[in-house]
Amino acid sequence: MRLQKGQKLLFIGDSITDCERARPIGEGLFGALGKGYVSMVDAFLTAVYPELGIRVVNVGTSGNNVVNLRDRWQEDVLDQKPDWLSVMIGTNDVWRQFDTPFIKDWHVYPEEYETTLRALVERTKPLVGNIVLMTPFFLESNEQDAMRIRMDEYGAIVKKIAQEYGALFVDTQVAYNVVLKDLYSATLAWDRVHPTPAGHVVLARAFLNAIGFDWNKA
Amino acid sequence: MRLQKGQKLLFIGDSITDCERARPIGEGLFGALGKGYVSMVDAFLTAVYPELGIRVVNVGTSGNNVVNLRDRWQEDVLDQKPDWLSVMIGTNDVWRQFDTPFIKDWHVYPEEYETTLRALVERTKPLVGNIVLMTPFFLESNEQDAMRIRMDEYGAIVKKIAQEYGALFVDTQVAYNVVLKDLYSATLAWDRVHPTPAGHVVLARAFLNAIGFDWNKA
Amino acid sequence: MRLQKGQKLLFIGDSITDCERARPIGEGLFGALGKGYVSMVDAFLTAVYPELGIRVVNVGTSGNNVVNLRDRWQEDVLDQKPDWLSVMIGTNDVWRQFDTPFIKDWHVYPEEYETTLRALVERTKPLVGNIVLMTPFFLESNEQDAMRIRMDEYGAIVKKIAQEYGALFVDTQVAYNVVLKDLYSATLAWDRVHPTPAGHVVLARAFLNAIGFDWNKA
Amino acid sequence: MRLQKGQKLLFIGDSITDCERARPIGEGLFGALGKGYVSMVDAFLTAVYPELGIRVVNVGTSGNNVVNLRDRWQEDVLDQKPDWLSVMIGTNDVWRQFDTPFIKDWHVYPEEYETTLRALVERTKPLVGNIVLMTPFFLESNEQDAMRIRMDEYGAIVKKIAQEYGALFVDTQVAYNVVLKDLYSATLAWDRVHPTPAGHVVLARAFLNAIGFDWNKA
Amino acid sequence: MRLQKGQKLLFIGDSITDCERARPIGEGLFGALGKGYVSMVDAFLTAVYPELGIRVVNVGTSGNNVVNLRDRWQEDVLDQKPDWLSVMIGTNDVWRQFDTPFIKDWHVYPEEYETTLRALVERTKPLVGNIVLMTPFFLESNEQDAMRIRMDEYGAIVKKIAQEYGALFVDTQVAYNVVLKDLYSATLAWDRVHPTPAGHVVLARAFLNAIGFDWNKA
Amino acid sequence: MRLQKGQKLLFIGDSITDCERARPIGEGLFGALGKGYVSMVDAFLTAVYPELGIRVVNVGTSGNNVVNLRDRWQEDVLDQKPDWLSVMIGTNDVWRQFDTPFIKDWHVYPEEYETTLRALVERTKPLVGNIVLMTPFFLESNEQDAMRIRMDEYGAIVKKIAQEYGALFVDTQVAYNVVLKDLYSATLAWDRVHPTPAGHVVLARAFLNAIGFDWNKA
Amino acid sequence: MRLQKGQKLLFIGDSITDCERARPIGEGLFGALGKGYVSMVDAFLTAVYPELGIRVVNVGTSGNNVVNLRDRWQEDVLDQKPDWLSVMIGTNDVWRQFDTPFIKDWHVYPEEYETTLRALVERTKPLVGNIVLMTPFFLESNEQDAMRIRMDEYGAIVKKIAQEYGALFVDTQVAYNVVLKDLYSATLAWDRVHPTPAGHVVLARAFLNAIGFDWNKA
Amino acid sequence: MRLQKGQKLLFIGDSITDCERARPIGEGLFGALGKGYVSMVDAFLTAVYPELGIRVVNVGTSGNNVVNLRDRWQEDVLDQKPDWLSVMIGTNDVWRQFDTPFIKDWHVYPEEYETTLRALVERTKPLVGNIVLMTPFFLESNEQDAMRIRMDEYGAIVKKIAQEYGALFVDTQVAYNVVLKDLYSATLAWDRVHPTPAGHVVLARAFLNAIGFDWNKA
Repeated sequence: MRLQKGQKLLFIGDSITDCERARPIGEGLFGALGKGYVSMVDAFLTAVYPELGIRVVNVGTSGNNVVNLRDRWQEDVLDQKPDWLSVMIGTNDVWRQFDTPFIKDWHVYPEEYETTLRALVERTKPLVGNIVLMTPFFLESNEQDAMRIRMDEYGAIVKKIAQEYGALFVDTQVAYNVVLKDLYSATLAWDRVHPTPAGHVVLARAFLNAIGFDWNKA
Repeated sequence: MRLQKGQKLLFIGDSITDCERARPIGEGLFGALGKGYVSMVDAFLTAVYPELGIRVVNVGTSGNNVVNLRDRWQEDVLDQKPDWLSVMIGTNDVWRQFDTPFIKDWHVYPEEYETTLRALVERTKPLVGNIVLMTPFFLESNEQDAMRIRMDEYGAIVKKIAQEYGALFVDTQVAYNVVLKDLYSATLAWDRVHPTPAGHVVLARAFLNAIGFDWNKA
Repeated sequence: MRLQKGQKLLFIGDSITDCERARPIGEGLFGALGKGYVSMVDAFLTAVYPELGIRVVNVGTSGNNVVNLRDRWQEDVLDQKPDWLSVMIGTNDVWRQFDTPFIKDWHVYPEEYETTLRALVERTKPLVGNIVLMTPFFLESNEQDAMRIRMDEYGAIVKKIAQEYGALFVDTQVAYNVVLKDLYSATLAWDRVHPTPAGHVVLARAFLNAIGFDWNKA
Repeated sequence: MRLQKGQKLLFIGDSITDCERARPIGEGLFGALGKGYVSMVDAFLTAVYPELGIRVVNVGTSGNNVVNLRDRWQEDVLDQKPDWLSVMIGTNDVWRQFDTPFIKDWHVYPEEYETTLRALVERTKPLVGNIVLMTPFFLESNEQDAMRIRMDEYGAIVKKIAQEYGALFVDTQVAYNVVLKDLYSATLAWDRVHPTPAGHVVLARAFLNAIGFDWNKA
Repeated sequence: MRLQKGQKLLFIGDSITDCERARPIGEGLFGALGKGYVSMVDAFLTAVYPELGIRVVNVGTSGNNVVNLRDRWQEDVLDQKPDWLSVMIGTNDVWRQFDTPFIKDWHVYPEEYETTLRALVERTKPLVGNIVLMTPFFLESNEQDAMRIRMDEYGAIVKKIAQEYGALFVDTQVAYNVVLKDLYSATLAWDRVHPTPAGHVVLARAFLNAIGFDWNKA
Repeated sequence: MRLQKGQKLLFIGDSITDCERARPIGEGLFGALGKGYVSMVDAFLTAVYPELGIRVVNVGTSGNNVVNLRDRWQEDVLDQKPDWLSVMIGTNDVWRQFDTPFIKDWHVYPEEYETTLRALVERTKPLVGNIVLMTPFFLESNEQDAMRIRMDEYGAIVKKIAQEYGALFVDTQVAYNVVLKDLYSATLAWDRVHPTPAGHVVLARAFLNAIGFDWNKA
Repeated sequence: MRLQKGQKLLFIGDSITDCERARPIGEGLFGALGKGYVSMVDAFLTAVYPELGIRVVNVGTSGNNVVNLRDRWQEDVLDQKPDWLSVMIGTNDVWRQFDTPFIKDWHVYPEEYETTLRALVERTKPLVGNIVLMTPFFLESNEQDAMRIRMDEYGAIVKKIAQEYGALFVDTQVAYNVVLKDLYSATLAWDRVHPTPAGHVVLARAFLNAIGFDWNKA
Repeated sequence: MRLQKGQKLLFIGDSITDCERARPIGEGLFGALGKGYVSMVDAFLTAVYPELGIRVVNVGTSGNNVVNLRDRWQEDVLDQKPDWLSVMIGTNDVWRQFDTPFIKDWHVYPEEYETTLRALVERTKPLVGNIVLMTPFFLESNEQDAMRIRMDEYGAIVKKIAQEYGALFVDTQVAYNVVLKDLYSATLAWDRVHPTPAGHVVLARAFLNAIGFDWNKA
């Protein structure tokens, strides 16, 4: 288990991270962590490792792309002084290219995505000891689907940056692909983007596995 | 893993089971299973054992005691024809003795609790192949607390009935006691009864462990 | 133009037809016809053929499958005594097989779909002069997608029944396929099922073309 | 078809244009274009000319008169840098003279209307390649009705300015007059101002015809 | 002043009478009489003739036509045992012919209107001492307007029946015509049907004048 | 009739004047004048003297006392440039002395009331041609009631100032006293302060009589 | 202290008793006893005599008069089997005579009040060991006020019946009169009927004093 | 009785004091003092000592700890110029240590609590004649409970400061302990913190006893 006693773990991302978290900062009781994988991660850490006292914070914001993250990075990430930072971004960067293709101002293409994300990691590395980079994903099993192809490109960028900076890497698309062998995507997300609770379990498991969580701890 | 392909697993109980499930029957997408341990169990079964296709149904109802369960047993349990049935009841039977002590009509004392619960199991055993009995619990670490003492009595009754009928037994109080060594009860439930997500993880883990869930399944 | 002065045209179907129509019968002003293709068809008939005085009625109901239609057929179709009847059903018959695959009670498989739909047409033909059968559709351009394959089966059934009974046939999937050559499906429907206004125009155009609507009428 | 690939088409006007569009700028999915003729125009362009990728924007605002347009022209029109601009204004300029005749501050008389509208066109012409001027209208078939007479004056001013500046001209009153031969005005608008969907079809058709839309395009 | 001490005065009609009155019977304080002419009549009777103690009751119902009145006549009129009855009906009988011309089930044509209204008066005359018949009206000054012509027909029927049975007759159209010489109809009613407070004053004055109200009573 | 063609009549006061008027300025259609005597005055002026075109404005504000009026006098009275100004204030100045007697900051005693009101009239007289001063009132027939005695003091101050400055004077208490001979106060106002519609008729009549309104004008 | 261990005390009355109590029966936590004197009585009994375990039930209903009590007496009083019954009724019986004087159906005059109340006590005495009769009251210090005179008549009837049947008698008017020497009625109730918390303290004190409550009990 | 005629008594604290008081300052009618012990204290002072005219003000704020009080002390306490000040704070200072133990920023430990509270008293003593310090409390009868132990520490600090500065001291924990001998804590507060009305009576009694309130005053 890589997390140590008393550490602070902060998640940032888009609606998949947000899930109706509290404002301005998502932490504390009463649903403050939202209804998605962040809340699940926190619940498992608290229930299974109560002695560690891990503090989980959620600053995901619905609709955000990587440029939006950059614009609030100082306040929502660096000022929070986390020990661990987890980033999952890219869904909206890609989706707008497919659902509102004519409104190009709303698109973030691969080059800008890569440059922006790398700059964020570069800036954060000296300040935050542990960074986890999670890929965006698209719940479509057809690898030739145009949006899936594009999302995979963004996932590859995340992987490349994780390797460059030695960040923990979580390939959410791979994690979902296992399940998609048995289930049609609609079971995990009606719109192929926003997961059901089962879909969030896939994310939480992938994250917890990456940090060395022991599922069978007494 | 004891559940088999295509089986139907039904949960009944009080508000801890209910958690805003859909009416009249809690099943399907869009939060139909509520926000508690039932939804977590379903999400883990779907995400980790997608090939089994387990159908989970939630018919918990807030405020119910064992007498209320009896009154809706035919419609909400037997008519649903589950392969697995999980029952967790007793919180309100006990709680009313402590929060509205002067309104004795609202109390279900141990004798009536035991008689009623046993009759339900007796009636159900020939029809449902697998029964899981979960104890009620009280999130209070002081074993001399009056309400904790009383709740433990009810838990012992559940255990006795489980043994009599060969039902799977889940001791939720024991599961919580492990966590309460490190955490004050308020972290798991403000009122010592309704769990936070972390508190529901304790329940979901205890249930999944009882049915032989493999946490490390690929 | 096949519709004649003073005729009554009734649409039945699921949420794609419903679109928040008035209850119990959708007709009249103030959004009574809903916000989808039915309202568009009515608006074009009124604006372009005001001299015909066509009365449009919407009895689509969200969530319905062909079995639900059968259960309300007498009251919602036959009792209304329409001159024209348009039916578009099948989305939910198929979708439940893919989004809640373990709840088999909610599925309507091809055989039951065909039998039920044919019985409805058989029963109605002597009473309603003109029947239009519209296929269900799935806004997925990948013809090998499992749900698209299944939906195409249902479309083929609709076509077969239309031919058997000499009903007007509208192939909505074909109409969408034209547009999907240029647009990713998310532009027409986030969940690949519920169309945007542009998606409803595709349906309205296909219907109006089928009945001989003259777009260039002065 | 006069619109070319990738062009941006912006509509400005009053409540007839607004129709509950999104704020601050009406564009994108989920009803952002409102429920009126603008949304219809967009839906037809997307469904019939998907290959053109026309971007439609709605900045109509309920209650506006031409003076209100002037006050937000820089931000809502020029800063948006459209390729096509469509303006339909004048209803409130006239209506206030008839429904609150004693509150003269709220009236915009013909001279001010003409001066202001001309100044807007003059200012915009060098910046926006294509301008469409649509007349205001009053759904009253009696040409001697006082408010109809007055509205016709404003329509004539629009026509004059369109001719002066070579703008495309859409005579909405003429388009409605055709329909009013067969239908009493209440069928198209309860208050003779805010159209039903059929009334919006009249506007959308008139606009689309003006820009060379091919209704029979395959 | 024709009303005498302690008498009960009941108004029935459509939305112009209703004006959000209390249900099931509109009488008493706190807006129970609605916001229209009935409330004004009551307020003037109470304020100017407090010594008479007139009890005013409102059973107008929005959307009603004369057939709807007939269906609730026993309960809402006769069972109330009024000393005075005022009826104003016909707006919806006519309006539906003009706003939803294709839905003929919703129209009440002159013959049915006359027959039904006469039967109601015939049935009531032996039981209620004083009947006031008010014409329906249309706030359109153009006497050649199709809906105004039709409404005038209904007004003439009311007048004829009033004369036949010796009922007090209030010609609301005539009362409005005086005001319409100076004001455009939109000042009195946006949709030419539902009056502003000023429009309700015209009705209240006409009614009060008909019953001999002394405006200058000290 | 003292009001002349095209004049603007502005009312200021407390909740009795306000009655849910529109903000920031109460004028125009759709209930903008509130539900009290101001709306009635406007409705009678419009219905009986349509040829005069009187513009009525309501700037009453619930809870106000004379000090509150002074604080918004420039903006809400003088900047509006009325031809006629009607002021009715004092209820809250007095009431707070009786319902919250211990919170003396909320009381406005006679001396401050007189000084402040006189200063407002002094300041306004050169700018507004016609001023109407209405007394506050208390709907209590017992002249020895402590609050009635106090309210009468304030009424006397209003009368004195009206005489000093030659303003039109409306004694609302006297107008109510006539009605209170026949009716218990609860019929006109449950709390003896906020009038029913009948109570507002008393105010409107007193005002209209003061300005020479001809009730029998054809 | 007259109440004994384990007894049930039921209150019935009108809005002054009701105060938003729970439905159908007001008992238990979370405001079930309403916000008035009943809740205060319960709170003092629980806080000062916790060892007695008195069960308090509230079945007051807003708007009720003595006839309404009679109509629900079996279900709401006798079926509840209280040991103590407290009745306070009469406000609405009287008030309707003063606020809606013309609607005589709504009045309950002294004779009917007395007959009905006596019949209820007669019927209940054999079944309920202890009956408390509280007078209705009117928060008006002027003993010559018409409604106060009438309310005093009803209070005298209550006193007479209490004496006839040996019921405990609580003269709420007398209790209020003490306070009204120092405070104007508006401080205790804006409408002279519905008490502020201070007004409810007067009622609770009078009740508790009548049953021998010891305020200085340790 | 220590309070004297015309004095102002201000309460500050957390949610137990707040209880939905009015904003920004809680005073006046209509629930402005909230629903807890402050409102009860005011109601008893008004009902039993109406001649004193005590003005009660509530500035409690839910969620506050002693540091939050300090931050609004000038505006909410000193600027209000009370004659009496009552402070009850500490619940949240302690509770956050037990319900969100990992978020240490939210905890106020004993040293900071003592320093801050003493500084507030020191600063206030010269300006406010009478200070009452009430301990925080925890409704748990087990004196070895971890949170009860911690709360008792804070209570001891309050006692020490009260003695140092000669403030009136109210030991709320002691007052509750008496009741907890007979009742389980859940009867007084579901979460052991927010009292029921009975729990607020305990607080109000303790406060009133401390200021010499005579419960048997006529």
